[in-house]
Amino acid sequence: MFSPIDHAMMLRAIELAKRGRFTTAPNPNVGCVIAHGDNIVGEGYHYQAGQPHAEVFALRAAGDKARGATAYVTLEPCSHYGRTPPCAEALVKAKVSRVVCAMVDPNPQVAGRGIEMLQVAGIEVQTGLFEADAQALNPGFIKRMKTGLPYVQLKLASSLDGRTALSNGQSKWITGAAARADVQRFRARAGAILSTSATVLADDPSLNIRWDELGDVVQQEYPQSAVRQPCRVVIDSRNRVTPDHKLVHLPGRTILARREQGHEAWPQSVEQLLVPATEAGGPLDLPALMKALSEQDINHVWVEAGAGLAGALLSAGLVDELIIYQAPKLMGSDSRGLVDLQGVTEMSQVPELAISDVRMVGPDIRITARVKQV
Amino acid sequence: MFSPIDHAMMLRAIELAKRGRFTTAPNPNVGCVIAHGDNIVGEGYHYQAGQPHAEVFALRAAGDKARGATAYVTLEPCSHYGRTPPCAEALVKAKVSRVVCAMVDPNPQVAGRGIEMLQVAGIEVQTGLFEADAQALNPGFIKRMKTGLPYVQLKLASSLDGRTALSNGQSKWITGAAARADVQRFRARAGAILSTSATVLADDPSLNIRWDELGDVVQQEYPQSAVRQPCRVVIDSRNRVTPDHKLVHLPGRTILARREQGHEAWPQSVEQLLVPATEAGGPLDLPALMKALSEQDINHVWVEAGAGLAGALLSAGLVDELIIYQAPKLMGSDSRGLVDLQGVTEMSQVPELAISDVRMVGPDIRITARVKQV
Repeated sequence: MFSPIDHAMMLRAIELAKRGRFTTAPNPNVGCVIAHGDNIVGEGYHYQAGQPHAEVFALRAAGDKARGATAYVTLEPCSHYGRTPPCAEALVKAKVSRVVCAMVDPNPQVAGRGIEMLQVAGIEVQTGLFEADAQALNPGFIKRMKTGLPYVQLKLASSLDGRTALSNGQSKWITGAAARADVQRFRARAGAILSTSATVLADDPSLNIRWDELGDVVQQEYPQSAVRQPCRVVIDSRNRVTPDHKLVHLPGRTILARREQGHEAWPQSVEQLLVPATEAGGPLDLPALMKALSEQDINHVWVEAGAGLAGALLSAGLVDELIIYQAPKLMGSDSRGLVDLQGVTEMSQVPELAISDVRMVGPDIRITARVKQV
Repeated sequence: MFSPIDHAMMLRAIELAKRGRFTTAPNPNVGCVIAHGDNIVGEGYHYQAGQPHAEVFALRAAGDKARGATAYVTLEPCSHYGRTPPCAEALVKAKVSRVVCAMVDPNPQVAGRGIEMLQVAGIEVQTGLFEADAQALNPGFIKRMKTGLPYVQLKLASSLDGRTALSNGQSKWITGAAARADVQRFRARAGAILSTSATVLADDPSLNIRWDELGDVVQQEYPQSAVRQPCRVVIDSRNRVTPDHKLVHLPGRTILARREQGHEAWPQSVEQLLVPATEAGGPLDLPALMKALSEQDINHVWVEAGAGLAGALLSAGLVDELIIYQAPKLMGSDSRGLVDLQGVTEMSQVPELAISDVRMVGPDIRITARVKQV
């Protein structure tokens, strides 16, 4: 069904799509190649919300040569009139003869409409080439479109024996500089960075992107002027974050998730998001918080917090993927644990993961694991 | 100094040496290749204590063709009259013209004597080719010869958050079948498997080699009839192990390390080793135990025990390498820890490791780490 040339062209489109990984949020990463056989006549990718889609850039580059060509797109072309006219219509107008999509639109409300618009115009359409790779470009966008919840990555960092701090709290710099730069790159892909007031009160962190720390490779394709600050979301159920904390003054939005409105004098970029508690005086309802973030077009949440929130998110089934950094140290059984789980008395109750990647990041180990949803 | 042919021949000798890795203890693994240029005329490796050394097998295979050849040996040929005549003498008699050794004898008492015996006979001798690889063949033999202490590998197994059991003790099968087979292969290379009476009382383990579990690749080169059972060493300072425990009846020696002789009726294969306590009524003196094992020709100790012994060995600076299996699970901060370390109040006091390997073993992760001795 797909030729070797088809494979090569779609892989190229996927590579192009990745160039938008730090900038397209809340839009998906999409790449497009237009070719006659193995002769590429136009390429494009989506760079930023409000700018043209990948297909438009590729069609502009191809010009008249789009006629009779095959268009390779990592995502089904859109069919709706939004900030730009539908890409399916643009492909019809350009008279391409065939369109190959890696995957259909994940939104069940519109899936297949772009393909139908092309087919009605007599264009041959095929789907499913490198579908898993195309899905991996946009885990957040896909999950939000399908479920109304963001994709949640939980970052954990510990010693090899799963400890985050000595019993007296001493912990600074458990992992090395390479792991911290790696964290910067993960943050830069996220729509929001989620933490807690406990972390803010303890460390007064910035929870932002620091271009200087992204590393040479990323800096070359992502100039400092283009840096997008993910929204900082702080769970602050007892209104403990104050206008004196550092992060509320940094560029980018800050959302304080609270049970009740506070009356502090906040900068314009700070907003209070009211979220119900699970019970009177209890912790915030985490599924309700995630749903609210999704409704604010946040596809992808990167969590950096303590053992309490980590355990609560896992117990609520809200975590999709864990990114675990382990430093080459042993801290001992009296030291503080990585994940607080309540009420686990049987091995059958412990969260089961599937490891998808393990590698060295400087002197530390990085483990990527998906949560097996039961 | 060394030609590409020299490199190829020594790598071949190292591969040959590995064939003895399950059987030569307490002797070292050694391989030998005899060649004229790139034409191999004889090969050999040491298979078992009491059998001829690698050089003898290679010289036998080469016959008259050894004359004028180069002999590649992974370890300096021996110069002493033991169970066999010295290999240096055999090489002289065979009239080889050149000997390349990967490393000199690690025993400072005899290092260089074999080389001297060759040089006196007019044979050109070079050393140091793939020295690190040759050292990796025999970490235990080398450490014992140099320090009088065995090489200690500490096996640990936990969840990704460093937990070994739920707070109620439930833990069975944290890691998978592939990790358990991997443990079998590590045990099979060791001179002794060290554990504690606490583990014996809790689990009544076998702590032996089960050929069925070694896996196809190893089984092909290591027939069931050749299986060597490492000595089982159980730290039993309060004489709690009894003749009813399973491991004392299995093939192979069992050493019970005790403060005082017990008067139970043991099988012939069980011996009580008296080791002083660190203080009256206190735990056994671990350095004294290790020295005693070394004096019993045990080069290489594989430790499978609980968090207490793991921490005590680390604190005493007796661990050379950790082999850590992590199962893709999270067990939570209430669960039991991996390593008990006493009196750690500063991050500068925690054991620092250097990770030398990390890989998947079935669904689990295996981390190999060396202890940075301070």
